[in-house]
Amino acid sequence: VEIGRGFYSRGWAFGTSGNFSVVVNPNPLRLAITATGIDKGSLAPQHILEINDTGRVLRGTGKPSNETLIHLAIVKLLGAGAVLHIHSVWSTLLSQAYASAGGVVLEGHEMLKGLAGVRSHDHREWLPIVKNSQDMSQLAAVVTRVLQENPGVHGILLQEHGLYTWGSTLADTKRHIEIFEFLMEVRVRSLPIERHEQSVQAL
Amino acid sequence: VEIGRGFYSRGWAFGTSGNFSVVVNPNPLRLAITATGIDKGSLAPQHILEINDTGRVLRGTGKPSNETLIHLAIVKLLGAGAVLHIHSVWSTLLSQAYASAGGVVLEGHEMLKGLAGVRSHDHREWLPIVKNSQDMSQLAAVVTRVLQENPGVHGILLQEHGLYTWGSTLADTKRHIEIFEFLMEVRVRSLPIERHEQSVQAL
Amino acid sequence: VEIGRGFYSRGWAFGTSGNFSVVVNPNPLRLAITATGIDKGSLAPQHILEINDTGRVLRGTGKPSNETLIHLAIVKLLGAGAVLHIHSVWSTLLSQAYASAGGVVLEGHEMLKGLAGVRSHDHREWLPIVKNSQDMSQLAAVVTRVLQENPGVHGILLQEHGLYTWGSTLADTKRHIEIFEFLMEVRVRSLPIERHEQSVQAL
Amino acid sequence: VEIGRGFYSRGWAFGTSGNFSVVVNPNPLRLAITATGIDKGSLAPQHILEINDTGRVLRGTGKPSNETLIHLAIVKLLGAGAVLHIHSVWSTLLSQAYASAGGVVLEGHEMLKGLAGVRSHDHREWLPIVKNSQDMSQLAAVVTRVLQENPGVHGILLQEHGLYTWGSTLADTKRHIEIFEFLMEVRVRSLPIERHEQSVQAL
Repeated sequence: VEIGRGFYSRGWAFGTSGNFSVVVNPNPLRLAITATGIDKGSLAPQHILEINDTGRVLRGTGKPSNETLIHLAIVKLLGAGAVLHIHSVWSTLLSQAYASAGGVVLEGHEMLKGLAGVRSHDHREWLPIVKNSQDMSQLAAVVTRVLQENPGVHGILLQEHGLYTWGSTLADTKRHIEIFEFLMEVRVRSLPIERHEQSVQAL
Repeated sequence: VEIGRGFYSRGWAFGTSGNFSVVVNPNPLRLAITATGIDKGSLAPQHILEINDTGRVLRGTGKPSNETLIHLAIVKLLGAGAVLHIHSVWSTLLSQAYASAGGVVLEGHEMLKGLAGVRSHDHREWLPIVKNSQDMSQLAAVVTRVLQENPGVHGILLQEHGLYTWGSTLADTKRHIEIFEFLMEVRVRSLPIERHEQSVQAL
Repeated sequence: VEIGRGFYSRGWAFGTSGNFSVVVNPNPLRLAITATGIDKGSLAPQHILEINDTGRVLRGTGKPSNETLIHLAIVKLLGAGAVLHIHSVWSTLLSQAYASAGGVVLEGHEMLKGLAGVRSHDHREWLPIVKNSQDMSQLAAVVTRVLQENPGVHGILLQEHGLYTWGSTLADTKRHIEIFEFLMEVRVRSLPIERHEQSVQAL
Repeated sequence: VEIGRGFYSRGWAFGTSGNFSVVVNPNPLRLAITATGIDKGSLAPQHILEINDTGRVLRGTGKPSNETLIHLAIVKLLGAGAVLHIHSVWSTLLSQAYASAGGVVLEGHEMLKGLAGVRSHDHREWLPIVKNSQDMSQLAAVVTRVLQENPGVHGILLQEHGLYTWGSTLADTKRHIEIFEFLMEVRVRSLPIERHEQSVQAL
């Protein structure tokens, strides 16, 4: 709840967008996940539901997030302890700018060390970009395939939709969101500066 | 009051700009609307007036918003339950950039699903842009005509003025504000990136 | 104090920059003004001094703002009830971009109606830009001359320094700060968009 | 703690980045420094450790910041009373844009007067840029050498990493952070505007 309100306050979860989950029990899988259609600026404990590994609600009232299948796919494939998904301006712009490349490289930044297991700024992080869809089974399958083909990535962008990231704990995952937001903002803001540098060099 | 203070805090209602209304009773129409000239950072319950369908004040002291006729026009034509109007930087920039086109297309974004009735990112939202005027009767008539000619739109931009949006409830309308703000910021920030992409492709 | 903290929170008064004054008594002139060197994020009542028309401290301990002479010049020439001065990013960028022109025109915006006496968006506001100086007597004299030569302006930019604005009351002057900040941000952000539009038209 | 939370709130210390130190006793040197891996949004007194001049923990539990050697190098060489280090978007962009020049000149701004000992906007501040490294002994040695070669500078950028600044007191150092953030944002945002001006002049 606190994390969700914080993201809303930063403009990362406008208009009921964004959804958040935490593994309550790994086996059998019990996942706490935000209900659908909630204004994250007034997120409260009663908006968090508990579901099983098929998405059935075990505790709480309401319908779990539309994107529950993606959360479950990530948790099952990667053994993640939490999954956070936001709709931010920078993730959207980045996913547009690099859509045709199928992803974007983030490299050379000290901030990369905030991603679990990364020990140096001299790291090359591939952030895959997946075409958006309203067919959640199909989208969850594509996400699974992309994660299988790109072992070790820390996040995935849905095109003109938003960022998914995960981690062992909720705190790790919140940190990943902040790291990616930073790196994505820098990458997008770098585009016109790179052009400036190229112009200066061309003189 | 809470929504108004939140918008002010985000810089969407600087300098007493912005005005907000909610239908209290549909028939006979009773509309709660912000008084004119109020600093939205210190908006309080006594700054909300109740008016009838001609704009006459029934409860509260003060003069209703200068733009009352536009609120009434939208409520009457569309049966909206609330109307929110803000002056944001992104709406202003967008209305300048696309003024000659008479509107701007917002499409392909997951965030479009935050607009009432939109079920897919694969939606093409037309956001009409209307020339600004100080003649409120004339402006209200133009807004009415543009809404009649563009059934199904969720908002309208007054050029170099700001955004109007509406909804069944106040919560829906607040969500529409956030959705449009997000989409407008993305659209404006995309302009130089699109040029960058075009340059890269031209190489 | 509340206004100062609000401006700090928006990043308009970083690093002890910014100074604020209010006329306590017009004749003989008694001006309440912020002391120099105060972090505006922790501005408190004891940081406000009362001075006379020559800048001598009548109440409170500390040294009044370095720019006291400019505040006094504006109050004396225009009969203002309050003067607010901030160092914002947008004012700095605008003062750089239009330095050679000696000022910048702000026009066509609904937000201009937030400036005292302006009744329509169809208004042409001239915002003079003055070269910065550390000689406060000389700078106050230049400000006085520019205000005499440009009757009716609502603010003045010191180049690569910041914005001065004033009003009948403190509330009016705070509103002017917000209006100018909005208009300056829009103007600076418009520069690359205008180039984009020109490029599109040139195709 | 208050400063750290404030920086986090401004987005200057995302994802456990940033580290902060204050001299508790100059001789023998006792330095209070943030522990490594702390979310600055929930920074609390127990996250501050006391270390000696070799980095050994004297009080508190946890491991001091990875960048302790850089803090110690700055304190020892310059006799600083505090050292603050943040990872901000603008510092990252600036360090990329001017990496090949080994630093960037910040000049002409009134805000420069917020740097200790600077009396006029007519000041030329050299902000050195140092290549990032994970070898902290080597990086501390490079920082020491660059500071020796550039007497009088108030800060240093680690490339694609962040800003270090220092001061006699914690308040002075916080002010330096704000001053540099302002100047760096202005410098980065000026790049496309300068190009615009050049284009206009070329017409």
